[in-house]
Amino acid sequence: MVYIGVDLGGTGIKAGVVDESGTILAKGSAPTGRERPYQAVIADIAALCTRVAAQAGTPMEEVAAMGVGVPGICNPETGVIPFCTNLGWHDVPFVEEMHKHLNLPVHVDNDATVAGYAESIAGVSAGTRASVFLTLGTGVGGGIVLGGRPYSGVHGIGSEIGHMILQMDGEPCTCGNEGCFERYASATAIIREARRAVKKDPQSMMMKNCGGNPERINAKIVIDCAKAGDKTARAVFDAYVRALAHGIISIINVLDPEIIVLGGGVSMAGDFLLNAVREAVKPLIFFKTMPYARIELARLGADAGIIGAALLGRK
Amino acid sequence: MVYIGVDLGGTGIKAGVVDESGTILAKGSAPTGRERPYQAVIADIAALCTRVAAQAGTPMEEVAAMGVGVPGICNPETGVIPFCTNLGWHDVPFVEEMHKHLNLPVHVDNDATVAGYAESIAGVSAGTRASVFLTLGTGVGGGIVLGGRPYSGVHGIGSEIGHMILQMDGEPCTCGNEGCFERYASATAIIREARRAVKKDPQSMMMKNCGGNPERINAKIVIDCAKAGDKTARAVFDAYVRALAHGIISIINVLDPEIIVLGGGVSMAGDFLLNAVREAVKPLIFFKTMPYARIELARLGADAGIIGAALLGRK
Repeated sequence: MVYIGVDLGGTGIKAGVVDESGTILAKGSAPTGRERPYQAVIADIAALCTRVAAQAGTPMEEVAAMGVGVPGICNPETGVIPFCTNLGWHDVPFVEEMHKHLNLPVHVDNDATVAGYAESIAGVSAGTRASVFLTLGTGVGGGIVLGGRPYSGVHGIGSEIGHMILQMDGEPCTCGNEGCFERYASATAIIREARRAVKKDPQSMMMKNCGGNPERINAKIVIDCAKAGDKTARAVFDAYVRALAHGIISIINVLDPEIIVLGGGVSMAGDFLLNAVREAVKPLIFFKTMPYARIELARLGADAGIIGAALLGRK
Repeated sequence: MVYIGVDLGGTGIKAGVVDESGTILAKGSAPTGRERPYQAVIADIAALCTRVAAQAGTPMEEVAAMGVGVPGICNPETGVIPFCTNLGWHDVPFVEEMHKHLNLPVHVDNDATVAGYAESIAGVSAGTRASVFLTLGTGVGGGIVLGGRPYSGVHGIGSEIGHMILQMDGEPCTCGNEGCFERYASATAIIREARRAVKKDPQSMMMKNCGGNPERINAKIVIDCAKAGDKTARAVFDAYVRALAHGIISIINVLDPEIIVLGGGVSMAGDFLLNAVREAVKPLIFFKTMPYARIELARLGADAGIIGAALLGRK
């Protein structure tokens, strides 16, 4: 059995043919063209699916199902996408529309959920009974997998882990609240704090590495400077890790998963991040002598979206 | 089929015979005597079980299973109780010890989990697909029920919702961390804030109602004075409700349950609390036009522990 997975982003659509084990057999991409009506975008998704199936040498009638990961919220049961801010979509009947083009079972879910699901099948969390995936990017996305299935809650608005409250009355969030986890644990948070920090310490290596223009500071610059021993960058990084660890503690104390997987741009910092996070979590554990979730880096990288979306259709 | 449920507390043991639907057919109690070795406490639990079965006119061989709710953490799979601070228990092989007295399947789980489970079968959350129960008492206990079964996580340390971080670097918690949800949403939090408030406003009605001794302020005094229109008490109550609402938002954004049930001492404030919490949650909802968890008061009161523990053995 093979499946088609689609990773639908604000700028590009990626699609791939994926086998039962999560291996990508063929993949391709197309621009999203999000300024167009959703019908046109969905027609292009269908055309891309047909194209990658041909690339893989798989007749469409041998594709068991297709799935799509969307940067918004989905109702996996009705197949409707109530909100997708990046695409400007509201209440888009995705599955219904897709069925005009493809005669296949169609599944939709949130992109972080789908990426976490992929890791739980073909990545670092394979074989675990409960996993939580965090994408540390512009925001913080969350993917919960329980008993082998993605968990998005009863109304499809769950696993928005980036919007747990970490600091009541804290930094204002795009969601309208204050102090959400993602305000402290995203790449955006690192950048914000680094810009604040270089104002106080213009001698920081970060200023040199951004060509003297704090607007050019990105998470990589901060992490590279922290690695290189720049004190101000290190302080920004340590505060970031501490906040991330506090959010992880909330996840452990509520969901107690077997594994917590760190993905997204910030996770490119690799072991430098991973070791720091593990060290920061340890003293915050409630029951010190009990086992708790392993913390690991994601393994599937940018392909996780395609793989997880494809396997939504796997029984 | 009937079951025996035991609510094991720091001072008393309550037990009851419960039918399939969650109705208590007979119940009784005994002192815990927690200063004794655990073997003695467990022998007394067994004796109490035999006694309530006789009261109900049920031969022990007709009891399908017994279950116990414990104010600590449990490993429902091994039947071991790794931690129960109230009883001073560490790594107590509860099920094994109980089997020396009773020839029955024995189940153990956390007391808040068990109470939430009871509500999900015979109480306000009956028939829901995912529920979260909060006991607002000395601390904040949490009970998660997913797909009809209690969820305590992979290592048995989950559903400790009172120890989500709500305010990083906030009020110190008994768990060793700072800013846990229960530091803001427990009866203890109301009392702490009321004592702070009467220092600044000794004219508050709360001072009269506690006989001039702030050490005697309890949550009921604060809530009664808030209801009666005392401004200082109202401010304490409002801050409490606001923090509770922020914690509820974290629960909604992560778990997206069908219902959130408020139990424990503070929930005795009834609709005065419930309406305030519902109003406080509404503006914090991420996706304003999407349905989200109903918030309700617990219905089973003090019997929830017996009922939920009993039904742990139900298939």
